[in-house]
Amino acid sequence: MNFQYTQLQEFIQQVFLSIGCSEEDALLASQVLISADLRGVDSHGIARLSGYVRLYDNGRLNPKPIIKIIHETPSTAVIDGDKGLGLVVAPKAMEIAMEKADKVGSGWISVQNSNHFGIAGYHAMKALHKDMIGWAMTNAAPLVTPTFSKEKLLGTNPIAVAVPAAENPPFVADFATTAVAYGKMEILQRKGAPAPLGWVQDKDGNPTDDANAVKNGGALLPLGGDREHGSHKGYGLGAIVDIFSGVLSGANFGPWVPPFATAGFMAAGEQVGKGTGHFLGAMRIDGFRPADEFKADMDKWINRFKAAPAVDGKNVIIPGDPERELEAERKANGINLLEPVVNDLNALATRFGIKF
Amino acid sequence: MNFQYTQLQEFIQQVFLSIGCSEEDALLASQVLISADLRGVDSHGIARLSGYVRLYDNGRLNPKPIIKIIHETPSTAVIDGDKGLGLVVAPKAMEIAMEKADKVGSGWISVQNSNHFGIAGYHAMKALHKDMIGWAMTNAAPLVTPTFSKEKLLGTNPIAVAVPAAENPPFVADFATTAVAYGKMEILQRKGAPAPLGWVQDKDGNPTDDANAVKNGGALLPLGGDREHGSHKGYGLGAIVDIFSGVLSGANFGPWVPPFATAGFMAAGEQVGKGTGHFLGAMRIDGFRPADEFKADMDKWINRFKAAPAVDGKNVIIPGDPERELEAERKANGINLLEPVVNDLNALATRFGIKF
Repeated sequence: MNFQYTQLQEFIQQVFLSIGCSEEDALLASQVLISADLRGVDSHGIARLSGYVRLYDNGRLNPKPIIKIIHETPSTAVIDGDKGLGLVVAPKAMEIAMEKADKVGSGWISVQNSNHFGIAGYHAMKALHKDMIGWAMTNAAPLVTPTFSKEKLLGTNPIAVAVPAAENPPFVADFATTAVAYGKMEILQRKGAPAPLGWVQDKDGNPTDDANAVKNGGALLPLGGDREHGSHKGYGLGAIVDIFSGVLSGANFGPWVPPFATAGFMAAGEQVGKGTGHFLGAMRIDGFRPADEFKADMDKWINRFKAAPAVDGKNVIIPGDPERELEAERKANGINLLEPVVNDLNALATRFGIKF
Repeated sequence: MNFQYTQLQEFIQQVFLSIGCSEEDALLASQVLISADLRGVDSHGIARLSGYVRLYDNGRLNPKPIIKIIHETPSTAVIDGDKGLGLVVAPKAMEIAMEKADKVGSGWISVQNSNHFGIAGYHAMKALHKDMIGWAMTNAAPLVTPTFSKEKLLGTNPIAVAVPAAENPPFVADFATTAVAYGKMEILQRKGAPAPLGWVQDKDGNPTDDANAVKNGGALLPLGGDREHGSHKGYGLGAIVDIFSGVLSGANFGPWVPPFATAGFMAAGEQVGKGTGHFLGAMRIDGFRPADEFKADMDKWINRFKAAPAVDGKNVIIPGDPERELEAERKANGINLLEPVVNDLNALATRFGIKF
């Protein structure tokens, strides 16, 4: 079924208002969530809305958080998200990072006591309009095994970096530190199709093409897949994200990061810190060199890469281009939702007495 | 042939003195270079010494650089390496990063007009003794194709991040953003062995097991190998390193980064900036939370990961452990050098009238 994104965003906003968020926070959260649907990260968009409501139902989400700085220097801080929506906590952390960058060149914020923050790229891209480079990372509940491990110890732990150009659209890298996102496994599960080797392992740590491997005690593999192809590097990256987001902030880390509220996967279990952790950063371009010169060189970089000879039928792609093209297409032609998602949204509409 | 590392380091120092480096710089450069041999990154150690001398012979290396800050804010700067040894420029940049971190919580230095800086991990680890997290990146001459490209546009562009713990040794991730380091291809070439698929492509962009592929017009592949296994993520990472090291500093970037001085691969070609670029960063732990608390949590992180059940015959490894173990072993038992390297060193000894 096809929906205009404005209609979906309005609905998201109404749901967040219904669980007690302020007007301002509900609007912001709806912008972040719909941005995932527009940019093609469907698993992090409106499909998760009922999950956020379950977090609220289970007392893990505070709809009126008092978000505050608990430790800081001129260029760094830890903020306590007060169990708020990550969709709201992360943008506020990014604002603080940008204020610090305005004053001293860069700002780096580690966040504790938050929840799932949606699509990492959204937060990194907030820096672009101020001629800053934006960074966003978050840890997440364990789905990934370090190299040689049989146990899941890391989340899909994404990294996003957004860099402005002049004539060209910005460079926006935004990726999970795994071989693939878990959403791709779910697509294969629905099709009953096997997974390419190198995406997942079984419960004993063997390579497998079982698209249900993670449900069957197996795990997603770090970027690189196996040791021979550099999985220790993907593991290292996921670990860096976990340390910056979790250990540096005083949030949970490693296997202790609480799960998002998917059905049957709710309990937070033993805790070593507060909630989920994020890490956000902003670097002012003219803290390094004049922004106009930098952006002209970024154009040179982008144009040179796009002009490279490509394998048959392909082009060299600038990170961020596919998502931006999809966003334009979906803004024009609407967003398709799967039936289970529509059913979830209808249930929310009934519960809160909102029109869908 | 086996040598004590002290003997090799002394020789390196004498060679750098012979081309006109100061006592202080020659000592520092020898420490950085031998650190690669000790930690098992043999391709970045004394095997490159004759290459640095060739850079000097070709006017691309200034043995007495005046390294200076050309633009700064309290937490950021660009420094001009004045064509100095990267082995000397990068540690000075890291010192500046740490001074800034001391004052305002973090320091981020982009470097232009430098040369190959040796082993990235060395520079990141400089931050550890001050209870800081260290970062080091560098761009390098193009050996790597972006996803779908037939043309080499990126270097192996390593990232290193060093994080202190309390009872445990530090976490030190240090890796090229490719599936494998080029040094591994050279080992296969010497053995006449094929390469695993996913390491390199041929000149037309096809998968190949030709260990000589890069010499035959092919390329190293980004971490991930192919698009299906996430090579666009490895490409994105390599691009981030290039942008932070090259574009942000005003150094060369992308395909314009000048080659290191391997034989027959000397000319710098068209330039879009000055020399090679690096990016170094330091974050003070207590800019986020008390260092003792953080380091105790890092111990918890490390101990938990090491205790995870592993596949048969393996252990879950903490990034940095293999290199540190090798360093202890090589300090005790000496460093083995291949005959061509020894021949190179003998030629340098003859040329400069130094004992080897």
